[in-house]
Amino acid sequence: MDVRAAVAYEPGKPLQLETVQLEGPKAGEVLVEIKATGVCHTDAYTLSGKDPEGLFPAILGHEGAGVVVEVGEGVKSVKVGDRVIPLYTPECRQCEYCLSRKTNLCQAIRLTQGKGLMPDGTSRFSLNSTKLHHYMGTSTFANYTVLPEIAVAKIREDAPFDKVCYIGCGVTTGIGAVVYTAKVEPGSKVVVFGLGGIGLNVIQGARMVGAEMIVGVDVNPSKRAIAEKFGMTHFVNPKEVEGDLVPYLVELTKGGADYSFECIGNVNVMRQALECCHKGWGESIIIGVAAAGEEIRTRPFQLVTGRVWKGSAFGGARGRTDVPKIVDWYMEGKINIDDLITHTMPIEKINDAFDLMHKGESIRTVLTF
Amino acid sequence: MDVRAAVAYEPGKPLQLETVQLEGPKAGEVLVEIKATGVCHTDAYTLSGKDPEGLFPAILGHEGAGVVVEVGEGVKSVKVGDRVIPLYTPECRQCEYCLSRKTNLCQAIRLTQGKGLMPDGTSRFSLNSTKLHHYMGTSTFANYTVLPEIAVAKIREDAPFDKVCYIGCGVTTGIGAVVYTAKVEPGSKVVVFGLGGIGLNVIQGARMVGAEMIVGVDVNPSKRAIAEKFGMTHFVNPKEVEGDLVPYLVELTKGGADYSFECIGNVNVMRQALECCHKGWGESIIIGVAAAGEEIRTRPFQLVTGRVWKGSAFGGARGRTDVPKIVDWYMEGKINIDDLITHTMPIEKINDAFDLMHKGESIRTVLTF
Repeated sequence: MDVRAAVAYEPGKPLQLETVQLEGPKAGEVLVEIKATGVCHTDAYTLSGKDPEGLFPAILGHEGAGVVVEVGEGVKSVKVGDRVIPLYTPECRQCEYCLSRKTNLCQAIRLTQGKGLMPDGTSRFSLNSTKLHHYMGTSTFANYTVLPEIAVAKIREDAPFDKVCYIGCGVTTGIGAVVYTAKVEPGSKVVVFGLGGIGLNVIQGARMVGAEMIVGVDVNPSKRAIAEKFGMTHFVNPKEVEGDLVPYLVELTKGGADYSFECIGNVNVMRQALECCHKGWGESIIIGVAAAGEEIRTRPFQLVTGRVWKGSAFGGARGRTDVPKIVDWYMEGKINIDDLITHTMPIEKINDAFDLMHKGESIRTVLTF
Repeated sequence: MDVRAAVAYEPGKPLQLETVQLEGPKAGEVLVEIKATGVCHTDAYTLSGKDPEGLFPAILGHEGAGVVVEVGEGVKSVKVGDRVIPLYTPECRQCEYCLSRKTNLCQAIRLTQGKGLMPDGTSRFSLNSTKLHHYMGTSTFANYTVLPEIAVAKIREDAPFDKVCYIGCGVTTGIGAVVYTAKVEPGSKVVVFGLGGIGLNVIQGARMVGAEMIVGVDVNPSKRAIAEKFGMTHFVNPKEVEGDLVPYLVELTKGGADYSFECIGNVNVMRQALECCHKGWGESIIIGVAAAGEEIRTRPFQLVTGRVWKGSAFGGARGRTDVPKIVDWYMEGKINIDDLITHTMPIEKINDAFDLMHKGESIRTVLTF
C-alpha cells in the first residue's frame, strides 16, 4: 500500500515527505495507522549521523499513537480498531529477560530491530524498489507502519492520540525511571539534573509517588517556572552556587538525595548526581545518553559507603503491561502531558519540529497526520 | 586496670607488647575480656602508615571475640559472662541510618570512633600517662577492651572464641555481601574476583544460598584447591585467558554474572567485575578497598542497559542483629571457618602474624590471649 512518510535519506539532511510503499502485516504482526507522533532527541541524534548504529535511508520516529487497521495471522492480543502505542522496547513475555522479573529489556527481536528490519529479516518499507530501513522497530514518521504484536501496547479507547503519543517515549522514560527503576517512596528527597522533557517527567513522577523534596538542577533559569508547575520544590542553578555543587546539594537535602536522576547525558553531571546521594542508601539513576566512548568515574568509596549507581531505559517500564497504566494516569489527571506538548503541527512541518527542538524553543512537538 | 596490649607506636614499625592502663566502662559501655583476635589487612594498612586516617600511638585490632566482664550504668542488652563479638560497625537501632532499613552503616558514634576515642570523647587506654588511641572502636589487640554497648554482638555460649572472632570482620564481610548486600538468589551465577579470605567467604556465602555457578577469578593458581573446597565451581586465571577477560566470563556464564564481587581493591578489576555482569540485571558489588584517590570508570551504557554498581561494607550486616546469626551458621555447619584459619598463635607472636600475611602464607592468623 502507499503511505505518506518522512524519509531520512542521509545523515544531516532534512527529512523529505514522500509516498512510499508498505507491505502488510505477516504472522504475528499488526498494521497500525499512526495518528500522531512526537519528535524526540533520539530521532535527531540518529538523523545527525552521530549515532554509530544509525542506518539510512530510513523512516525515523518512535513516539507514536494510532489504531490497529489489520492484524496478521495468529495475532491475539489486539484487534482491528484498538488504540495502540508502538513500543521500541517490546515485551514478548517469553524471553529470559521478560521472565527475569528484573528488567524491561525484552530481547526477543533485538537483533533484527537493530538492523532496521522486521523480525523475519526484511523491511516492509520501500520507495521505487529501494529498501527503506525501519527505525527502533517503530518508524512512526509514516501514517501507516507495521509492528510486531509484541511491540504494541493496547490503550484505552478514549485516549487522545496527540497527547498520549508522548507516552511512547519521553513520559514513560521519565516517570518510569521514578516508579519502576528507582521505586521512589513517599517522603523521599529527589534531585533531578536537567529540566528538559525527561527531567520534567521525572519531577512529576516524583510528585505523583509522594516525594517530599524535589530539587531541580539546571543552568537555564527559564526552566524554573514550568518545573515548579510540575512539582519541583527547590531550584538550583549551578552557575549561581558558590563553591562545589555536590556539597551544596548534600546540605540542601540535609544529608544527600535518596534518589537522583541524570537527564542530560553529561558524564560529569552523572558523577555529581551519584555523589550528591545520601550515604548509606542514595541511588543515582542515569537516564541521559552520553556521547559514544565517554566514561563515568568516581571513587569506589562512594559505592562502598552505600550509594548505588544504576541506569534506566524506557523508564524500566514493560511496554505492554505498564504503558497502558501510564495512559490511565494521564486520563485520571495524575500526570500532566498537555503542558509539555508546546507545539502541535501537521507531519508536513516535521523539519520545523526538529528546528524548534534544536533551538530549545519546544519541550515537545507533536506531529499529526 | 593493667592490661596486656600490642601497641602501635608509629607507622611502619613492629608492634610492641606492653602493659598498658585501661579505665573501666562508663555509662552505656562494657568491659570485654578479649580471648582471641584475627589479624586483618586493614590492621596492616593502618600500621603501614598509608591510611590517611590512621592515628598513633594506638591499639589496633578489630576482629575479636571475648566475654563481658563488667557493664557500665544503664547497659541492658548484655550482662557479665556473655560471649560477644566487638563491632567496628555498631548498631544503635536509633539513628537515621539504623532506622532507614536500607543500610548497616550506623552513624551513632562515627565521629569519635574516627578520632580513636570513645563516644564521650576520651581514650581509656594510656601508657605512662600518654594517651593511646582506640582503633575502629574495638582495639582487640589487648586482652581487655572497653566498648559501647551498641558495639558488641551477643553470641551463643558454645561458640569457640578462636574461630568466631573471624566473624568480627572477614567472614561477615564476605558472606554478608552475598546475603545482605546482593541478596543472591538460588540458581544465580556468581563471579568472584580475588580468592583471598574475603573472596573465599563470598564463595561459601554463594554456595550457602544456592548459587548454581560460582566462578572464581585469581592470577594465583594455588588458590584453586581451597576455593573449590568452599564451593567454587569454575576457576579462571586471567593470565591463561586469551583475549579479554570480560567477554570470556560473559561466555562462560552464558550471558554474564547475575552477581559479581570485587574482593581485591583494584579499580581496573572493579570495572571488569561490573562489565562481566548480565545485561538487564547483573549487579556488581565492590568489597575491596582501593588506594586513596583511585577511581573506577565505565561507560554509562553499562548501567543504562541494566547493570547495577554498588558496594558493601561489613557485608551489609547489622552487627547486633546479623552477627549472631552468622555464628549460628558456623555452629550448624553451614559455613566453614576452621579451614580459613591457617595459623593460631599467642598474642606475643603478633608481628609474626603480620609477616605471614604479607608473605601470603596465611589466609587468616588468629591470636589468642
